Amino acid sequence: MFDAIGEGFADRAREATIVNISLYRSSHRWFSMVGKDQPSVHNVHFIPDRKDAEVDHGATILDAALRAGIAIDAVCGGDGKCGRCKVRPVGKFSASTSDLLTDEETRSGIVLACRTEVEGDLTVEVLPRSRIGMHQILTSSIAEVPRPVTPWTRKESVQLPPATIWDNVADLERLWRIFGQSDIPIPLESLKMLPDAIRTGNWNVTVTLSKVDSKDEITRVEPGNTKERHYGMAVDIGTTTIVAELVDLISGDVVGTGSDYNRQISRGEDVIARMMYSEDGGGVELRTLVTETINSLISRLVQGESASCGCQMSGEDIVAASIAGNTVMTHLFLGLPTKQLRLEPYVPAAHHTGYLKASEVGLHVNPSARVMLFPCRAGYVGGDVIADVLASGLHKSSKLSLLIDVGTNGEIVLGKNDWMGACSCSAGPAFEGGEVSSGMRAMEGAIDRIRINDDLSTSYHVLGGERPVGVCGSGLIDLVAEMYDHGIIDRKARIQNIASKRIRPSEGGMEYVVEMKENLSEGALHDITVTDADLQNLLRTKAAIYGACSTLMRKMSESWERVSSIIIAGGFGYHLDIGRAVMIGMFPDVPQEKYRFIGNGALGGARLALLSEEKRREMMRIFDKMTYFELSVDNDFYNEFASSLFIPHTDLGRFPSASKEKRSEAEVEG
Amino acid sequence: MFDAIGEGFADRAREATIVNISLYRSSHRWFSMVGKDQPSVHNVHFIPDRKDAEVDHGATILDAALRAGIAIDAVCGGDGKCGRCKVRPVGKFSASTSDLLTDEETRSGIVLACRTEVEGDLTVEVLPRSRIGMHQILTSSIAEVPRPVTPWTRKESVQLPPATIWDNVADLERLWRIFGQSDIPIPLESLKMLPDAIRTGNWNVTVTLSKVDSKDEITRVEPGNTKERHYGMAVDIGTTTIVAELVDLISGDVVGTGSDYNRQISRGEDVIARMMYSEDGGGVELRTLVTETINSLISRLVQGESASCGCQMSGEDIVAASIAGNTVMTHLFLGLPTKQLRLEPYVPAAHHTGYLKASEVGLHVNPSARVMLFPCRAGYVGGDVIADVLASGLHKSSKLSLLIDVGTNGEIVLGKNDWMGACSCSAGPAFEGGEVSSGMRAMEGAIDRIRINDDLSTSYHVLGGERPVGVCGSGLIDLVAEMYDHGIIDRKARIQNIASKRIRPSEGGMEYVVEMKENLSEGALHDITVTDADLQNLLRTKAAIYGACSTLMRKMSESWERVSSIIIAGGFGYHLDIGRAVMIGMFPDVPQEKYRFIGNGALGGARLALLSEEKRREMMRIFDKMTYFELSVDNDFYNEFASSLFIPHTDLGRFPSASKEKRSEAEVEG
Repeated sequence: MFDAIGEGFADRAREATIVNISLYRSSHRWFSMVGKDQPSVHNVHFIPDRKDAEVDHGATILDAALRAGIAIDAVCGGDGKCGRCKVRPVGKFSASTSDLLTDEETRSGIVLACRTEVEGDLTVEVLPRSRIGMHQILTSSIAEVPRPVTPWTRKESVQLPPATIWDNVADLERLWRIFGQSDIPIPLESLKMLPDAIRTGNWNVTVTLSKVDSKDEITRVEPGNTKERHYGMAVDIGTTTIVAELVDLISGDVVGTGSDYNRQISRGEDVIARMMYSEDGGGVELRTLVTETINSLISRLVQGESASCGCQMSGEDIVAASIAGNTVMTHLFLGLPTKQLRLEPYVPAAHHTGYLKASEVGLHVNPSARVMLFPCRAGYVGGDVIADVLASGLHKSSKLSLLIDVGTNGEIVLGKNDWMGACSCSAGPAFEGGEVSSGMRAMEGAIDRIRINDDLSTSYHVLGGERPVGVCGSGLIDLVAEMYDHGIIDRKARIQNIASKRIRPSEGGMEYVVEMKENLSEGALHDITVTDADLQNLLRTKAAIYGACSTLMRKMSESWERVSSIIIAGGFGYHLDIGRAVMIGMFPDVPQEKYRFIGNGALGGARLALLSEEKRREMMRIFDKMTYFELSVDNDFYNEFASSLFIPHTDLGRFPSASKEKRSEAEVEG
Repeated sequence: MFDAIGEGFADRAREATIVNISLYRSSHRWFSMVGKDQPSVHNVHFIPDRKDAEVDHGATILDAALRAGIAIDAVCGGDGKCGRCKVRPVGKFSASTSDLLTDEETRSGIVLACRTEVEGDLTVEVLPRSRIGMHQILTSSIAEVPRPVTPWTRKESVQLPPATIWDNVADLERLWRIFGQSDIPIPLESLKMLPDAIRTGNWNVTVTLSKVDSKDEITRVEPGNTKERHYGMAVDIGTTTIVAELVDLISGDVVGTGSDYNRQISRGEDVIARMMYSEDGGGVELRTLVTETINSLISRLVQGESASCGCQMSGEDIVAASIAGNTVMTHLFLGLPTKQLRLEPYVPAAHHTGYLKASEVGLHVNPSARVMLFPCRAGYVGGDVIADVLASGLHKSSKLSLLIDVGTNGEIVLGKNDWMGACSCSAGPAFEGGEVSSGMRAMEGAIDRIRINDDLSTSYHVLGGERPVGVCGSGLIDLVAEMYDHGIIDRKARIQNIASKRIRPSEGGMEYVVEMKENLSEGALHDITVTDADLQNLLRTKAAIYGACSTLMRKMSESWERVSSIIIAGGFGYHLDIGRAVMIGMFPDVPQEKYRFIGNGALGGARLALLSEEKRREMMRIFDKMTYFELSVDNDFYNEFASSLFIPHTDLGRFPSASKEKRSEAEVEG
């Protein structure tokens, strides 16, 4: 497992966070408002990025950062509720007070970007912890594409008999005649291009046909023979990050990959915050932000391909797009309302929206290109999970498999070739760096692996190799396991009162010092610690995941012995030490060789569906066969969850390997 | 026939004019340009309309008129070539000289609106002849709708089982379940409305379904039961005028009719000028102008219906639209290129564009409403002619009929239930008021009926009842017949040198005075006259129509005896004295009881197709069965045309009744 460390893989972090705070936007202002004689536009200069933004007087620093293209963390969508967007501005500004800032921070000139209005030219230092770093987003996937590839588009080069006064049938019908098929639909956008294309190509044209619902339609007509240039796109719309692949639809090869943060992120980090922002009138803005993100990726991919193939490629050349996203991301991308999805009984507007036209959804590919979105099974089991399954092959095996996509929401699928059960658990953002005092995402500065030495000091690995800033999900799992192993915490994850300079009282309990302030990155104000409160959050998170897995097993009357493989999807797996995750009772205690990682299953699944008719049929079969279980109202789940609020579990018999290890240690000590 | 006179029916004038002048836009400016210190926006006040427009310094008066919503005649599209847009401005302006203005006009302060730039606030008098008057546009049609009506949309009110946590299938799939049919497509626009509609209606919704290509799709979902409100629209897009009907899709009744000039008219009066304007970069503007015209009609119709039903109707309530237009109007409405249509071999982009979405074509009805355009058979036999045939019933009779739609282009269909031949002849704009010195459209001030007295003075009828301004098409036919009858012209339509104060030499020949200046409407500068040159234009026009009819008869090896009915479509018929039209050899000499008028067949056909599935099938059968003959390269046609350049014809045997009358007179005189 340590092989992957330091290669820069990182958490995709595209799932939902349930944050227990009110997210409604506040228009409350604490300080004085703008005078009439003030200049109305100011420059905000961000360091160390050296990026600038021009904003109106009274705009917030968060707005300025968004404009400058700097990703500042703002879980709450800029409502002053999460305290994540800490910055240090110099110049004329007006900041609101906040309980989320310590006295020390306030003394150091630190403010919340979302609560600070620009009143003059500013220089703003973005603190490391507030920054959504440019860590490498997980783009790889193991999915294999069946050959020859069968995208839903095909290109045909045809020679038309030139029109004469005796044969002046219309251009479209002339084309139909060649195909021996009348009434092949053509979108208006493509029809507009037809007459010129035919004449520019001197009656030789290349037609791109799309097969939609078993029926051909004309997507594009180009002059001359362009059969060798045929492009499509696979996209994973994550809540946090978006990954897009440019795919050669002849060879099936990925010719370019691009990824970026979902620009919606500064309007709320998790799906709940986004839905509320959308319902509060921000739907169009969120839709624009996500399409802008994808369109900028398209533009980069197209430029890259133009350079590498020495040709003049444009977005128009992309004639098909396959997109997987969770249910909320799918809704926001399509501009569908989300209120009925957010509130019980969590009803999507549609499970499957079919093949939409690019012009309808706003993507800068060929306007007549069909854009296929993966169907969403339920509010919290979306197209990304269907894509995960498709990429994993779970649906084709006659043996039982369990698929776990761990993020803020854990999504779990149990099944085989003839049935599948799926559920989602609101794991909470602990593994994404939320609700844990020193937690952070898997990015530069994050401790992703940690060992506790006998003197209770620590050895650790930091992503990016520099000094640590905080601890990411895999590091936290290691930490809990190590603390338990060293007797620092008991089975209920309570810190024991051990005589050590690393263990000390903190607000509302004890805390363990992972690393001292002086060893951290410059400007750090606190030690990295883990508190009793943090540990309870982590315990709840792992209990939710294991509880959901075992509830699903119980629903399906299955036992762990019958599970032939456990598939971990998403970037989380790349950092994870499965042994430790089993030791704390987060993952089931089955032989480790049964675990396998598929990486970015959403992207892999999207690519498979783009390239293979068989895989598109499988996608629909997965959707049809999948039964969704709503755990939020399930008593079995609450029992399983409660039993899991121990390390590793109330029932030690479920974790024989973990318990055995612990027992043998106890015997030695005893 | 005189029954209809004075009822205000008027020529639809929606066909093409071939004008033998260059229409490319000129950027030539004669006078000095604007100084930097000039105010940049001026007010232009039009009288007697009392309408105002704000325009930039240097804009033309024609532009200002367009903005003020005043329809000024400009055949050439504002190129200073046709001399039709005469106005008298007072204020600061800069006018170009023009050969098209007489010295007298120039002395009176008359200028061409298109060649005069606004340089300060102006008051502009629009001369009566320059004005496209608000005459009543032909909106009636005899077509009968089969009952019960079968539009392609239907409304169904359904009660959905409310979603629960145990049954939280998506809204769309819940709806499908009720219809017992999965996968009914729904456009994104409608899907966006679905969740709110369902919850506002407390799980009772009314679904509008459209059947497109034998497949249902969801067009609209409304809360509650709204089955009794179901609206569609039938539209005739004429080159000159647009007529729209609001139709109750339950009863099939027309609940409102609106008509207006096609706003494209100020960018060229005929289809050739429009196509050239479009090719010259004006395509988007022309498309906007025609959709704006239709949208303003929709808005009026919706307001009218709201008032009369006491309900709050909106454009969203219109869920289907059926549109007939000639091939060029159809292309421009859809934004299709026209160059290949204008140049030999006159190839349309498509004959049939199917059912398009309203949002795609820009109509302000329900964005998901399907808009059906009548198929176009050829460049000059368009959807309006197919609609004429549908309305006339020609395609259902076992007996032979001839259909003539006379406009600038004459469109002729010969056939019966199992075959149809069609052709078009460039008749020229003589009957539309073009190329005839005192010609004008059938509107207020037009002489539509005329008799010559023994002293060669005239008795006439004027549309609108006021003093005459000019002579419209039916008046000109009367005039030619009367002049021939009174020996004023010979068989070649040359004015005879008769001693009368009504007959006098004119530029390049003789002229006959129809009415003296002093009896005309106030401000008239000339007598109403008809010159040798006018008569040659009229002769060519009538020869083209008759020549086309007889060419088609010859192609189909048919004889006039076998023709059971002659159907006259378009508004022309309402003013026309068939006897006179036969006398001059324009229409075939068959018993007058065989002639019948169907009025606005394009509108009637559009309404039939909107309301009846059977009629939509018939529409496609007409399209399929119709053979088009291109006369512009046909020697038969040129022979027939040349033989028709006599009154009534070279071969008097073809016009026995006309010749007999003349012969008996000749005997009396002899």
